[in-house]
Amino acid sequence: MSLKEYNQLKEVFSKVSIASDVEGILHWDMSTMMPSNSRQNRANQLAFIANLKHSLLSDPSVTELISNIDSRQLSKNDLTNFKEMQREYVLLSSLPSDLVEAISKTSALCEGKWQEAKKNCDFSIVKNSLNELINLSRQESKILSEKLNCFPYEALIQKYEPYSNVDHITKVFKDLEIFLLSSIDKIIEKQKKESALPIEDEFSSFNQHKIAKILMETIGFDFTKGRLDKSEHPFCGGATEDVRITTRYSEKDPFSSLEGVMHETGHALYELGLPSEWQHQPVGRSRGMAMHESQSLLIEMQITRSLAFKKYLSKILKENLSLSGKEWSAENLYLLSTQVNKTYIRVEADEVTYPLHIIMRFNLEKKIINGDLSTNDIPEAWNTEYKKMFGKNIDKDTNGCLQDIHWYAGLIGYFPTYTLGALASAQFAETIRKEIPKLDQNIEDGNFKALITWLKRNIHQKGSFFTTNEILEQVTKSSLNAKYFKEYISNRYL
Amino acid sequence: MSLKEYNQLKEVFSKVSIASDVEGILHWDMSTMMPSNSRQNRANQLAFIANLKHSLLSDPSVTELISNIDSRQLSKNDLTNFKEMQREYVLLSSLPSDLVEAISKTSALCEGKWQEAKKNCDFSIVKNSLNELINLSRQESKILSEKLNCFPYEALIQKYEPYSNVDHITKVFKDLEIFLLSSIDKIIEKQKKESALPIEDEFSSFNQHKIAKILMETIGFDFTKGRLDKSEHPFCGGATEDVRITTRYSEKDPFSSLEGVMHETGHALYELGLPSEWQHQPVGRSRGMAMHESQSLLIEMQITRSLAFKKYLSKILKENLSLSGKEWSAENLYLLSTQVNKTYIRVEADEVTYPLHIIMRFNLEKKIINGDLSTNDIPEAWNTEYKKMFGKNIDKDTNGCLQDIHWYAGLIGYFPTYTLGALASAQFAETIRKEIPKLDQNIEDGNFKALITWLKRNIHQKGSFFTTNEILEQVTKSSLNAKYFKEYISNRYL
Repeated sequence: MSLKEYNQLKEVFSKVSIASDVEGILHWDMSTMMPSNSRQNRANQLAFIANLKHSLLSDPSVTELISNIDSRQLSKNDLTNFKEMQREYVLLSSLPSDLVEAISKTSALCEGKWQEAKKNCDFSIVKNSLNELINLSRQESKILSEKLNCFPYEALIQKYEPYSNVDHITKVFKDLEIFLLSSIDKIIEKQKKESALPIEDEFSSFNQHKIAKILMETIGFDFTKGRLDKSEHPFCGGATEDVRITTRYSEKDPFSSLEGVMHETGHALYELGLPSEWQHQPVGRSRGMAMHESQSLLIEMQITRSLAFKKYLSKILKENLSLSGKEWSAENLYLLSTQVNKTYIRVEADEVTYPLHIIMRFNLEKKIINGDLSTNDIPEAWNTEYKKMFGKNIDKDTNGCLQDIHWYAGLIGYFPTYTLGALASAQFAETIRKEIPKLDQNIEDGNFKALITWLKRNIHQKGSFFTTNEILEQVTKSSLNAKYFKEYISNRYL
Repeated sequence: MSLKEYNQLKEVFSKVSIASDVEGILHWDMSTMMPSNSRQNRANQLAFIANLKHSLLSDPSVTELISNIDSRQLSKNDLTNFKEMQREYVLLSSLPSDLVEAISKTSALCEGKWQEAKKNCDFSIVKNSLNELINLSRQESKILSEKLNCFPYEALIQKYEPYSNVDHITKVFKDLEIFLLSSIDKIIEKQKKESALPIEDEFSSFNQHKIAKILMETIGFDFTKGRLDKSEHPFCGGATEDVRITTRYSEKDPFSSLEGVMHETGHALYELGLPSEWQHQPVGRSRGMAMHESQSLLIEMQITRSLAFKKYLSKILKENLSLSGKEWSAENLYLLSTQVNKTYIRVEADEVTYPLHIIMRFNLEKKIINGDLSTNDIPEAWNTEYKKMFGKNIDKDTNGCLQDIHWYAGLIGYFPTYTLGALASAQFAETIRKEIPKLDQNIEDGNFKALITWLKRNIHQKGSFFTTNEILEQVTKSSLNAKYFKEYISNRYL
């Protein structure tokens, strides 16, 4: 009877996945299309779906199905799927339904308050709402940590990157922090000697959008299964076979948008490359946000910011917008794109200083969840931590704790996955360069086929059949560590 | 204990309403934003939500709650709400869940096939899919007709306009048909003597959109609770306090878009004017599609196509786009906007011939549902019926049975509500002109306050507390009939 029960369970998980797709479209809409005064009703809708997913999995029949399945009767793939089902079951069913609903509703409302607070540069506007949300996250982390038998903060990270280990992350981050703190000033000093020519031609939003679409198409994004739009905060979202990325255009800094688009395209290619025969099942999903970020950073940092790519881009800009002249040369675009600076804003940071932005957030999050940092004290703690990392004072909260949406959307535990992904992307890239020796020539020719095929076969198609570490070991013969990233930074910048 | 149970029931209906809001956003997205190859997954999402609404109401606990409520303990308003709950309960819970899911899935897929069939002008592309959908509608109509104790086709109409009576509609439509068949040629003959100057200036989509937004804002559409977008087939959709209308722009015929926008704005004002204290409850919803159409047609036909409005519009066009010259005079715009023609396409028809398009669809639908017309024979039957009404042959199915989305989206029984709405709008307009004697001057001044206040107080705010006929009787002292519409057509055109 186990197969029948397993198939029933598959039905349940398929519904949960479809509900997540609905959530994805509602979220995308909220950030790109929704009228400003519809937020309360959208919050109701999102809470309703969150609650529904919760009740689908916390139904007693699911517990019964799970305990009745004799896993010896399952094929190898089904067994892995069953294992992932149980993980998802614990994450989604352990919280009481009123807590699930409260988190969903409070995040949607807090996100609105954050937008207002950011606009007015006034943390006090969002403070109470954030405090409420943090209290809910603390409750969540406590319940999950008991079920997953780990630290409360670790439980939150595992929501985004399964099987994470907070001690391991702390160790790897410390290693990285020491390297970066000793390298950044050297890099900045070195770059002073090779100054880039500034871009002075007009490069309108309209033209940025046009070039972004050309690049997306060339690298293999399928516009019949996805979109590109504008939003305040760039993201990759949407639903199964309907992957939607967003960007924002700055006429002053056109490349931040183009490189952002390529970053989100990396996410999108992962989503569109997942094993379609396992669509809507736990093993058919992306592995986690660290793996996701490895895919976006691989495209953004290793590919788009390489000299080879700038040769290709320079040609495209000349052909489509008649942009020529020295400042549009590949060499100058490369210099512009690899400038290292101590910025206030994480999303404007280069790849060298970026991990420090993450490590400081990681340190703060740990304290917030452990109860060592109160909501009131977040602005000050942020500024202190920033000063420690970058040696600079923060002038206003929009340059500090109001810059990122994450905490205000209820996403505590998400930040570390960015840097875990950066480390993994460097690790993957080393293997790719060995296995595709002509990679640079391909990129220069605007030919991304071999690369995308490699990523699809070695990573995307694996869905959640393996952990991130298992995939890293299969592909690079080594588990996650900072060595490859440090080498990569040294090679490119020192 | 009745109050407690009534409140539990309110909770259930509130969830159904929020699920409908989610459906509304997914539908809007499908018509405006969704990538072309995401249809299968969107069909899954819509089927999932449809199924969910069904299972919320068909849960045995709901039947129990309904039967346990002692209606004598409810206040007058709550009693009406309870009555509407029961009506919705019958409509939503009577169908078996596999039928509900099949209808939802098949409609989403059939809609896609229809788009393809229309593009290729080839009915055979959509035939099988439509046939499947019609069979499902027949099953639905049979089940509902038993529960509602009415004819199968009547049961389908009641989904869109509650408390409809198919014999009454047949009688009113016959009266109207006789009047129109004897008037149309006279009107066309008369109009030959007063030819309008054609518009030859360029009036781009961009400028149409600009003017549309100005008109919408002036008439009171709240853009913080709604949007205007483009779609193949104009509609008003979205969710509670998030009302989204669409249009399509034709450079050859700019006014079809502007008047279409005003039509959808009429729908939107109704939705945004509903009693907010009853949000998400059955009595808080719009009364039905005939009432809805009366609101859109009132704005489009009685207001936007009046000479007074053309005076206002002419001024706006001059101020914003510097369009002057004789062809932009109010008088000429009025002539252009009241031209009567025998068109193939319903949505391009004028208000005089429009009801004939509806009456022929009403006749066909009746036969389709009764089993007297097979899917194969629809194109021919359409052409025969059209010839009977308009005396013209149809050259191709895109000018015939492929023109409208309705049947291909599973909306059989919807068409008659358009003409019921037209009759009601003329009936309301007669009263409005009595109660707001300065109406024409107001319109000419671009001042719509008194009108919108009147509509809100007399119609919108009544939600579903009364039937359409009750509201008509309260406001116009007369039940629904064709007299006012015939008078109005005679006055304007004869």
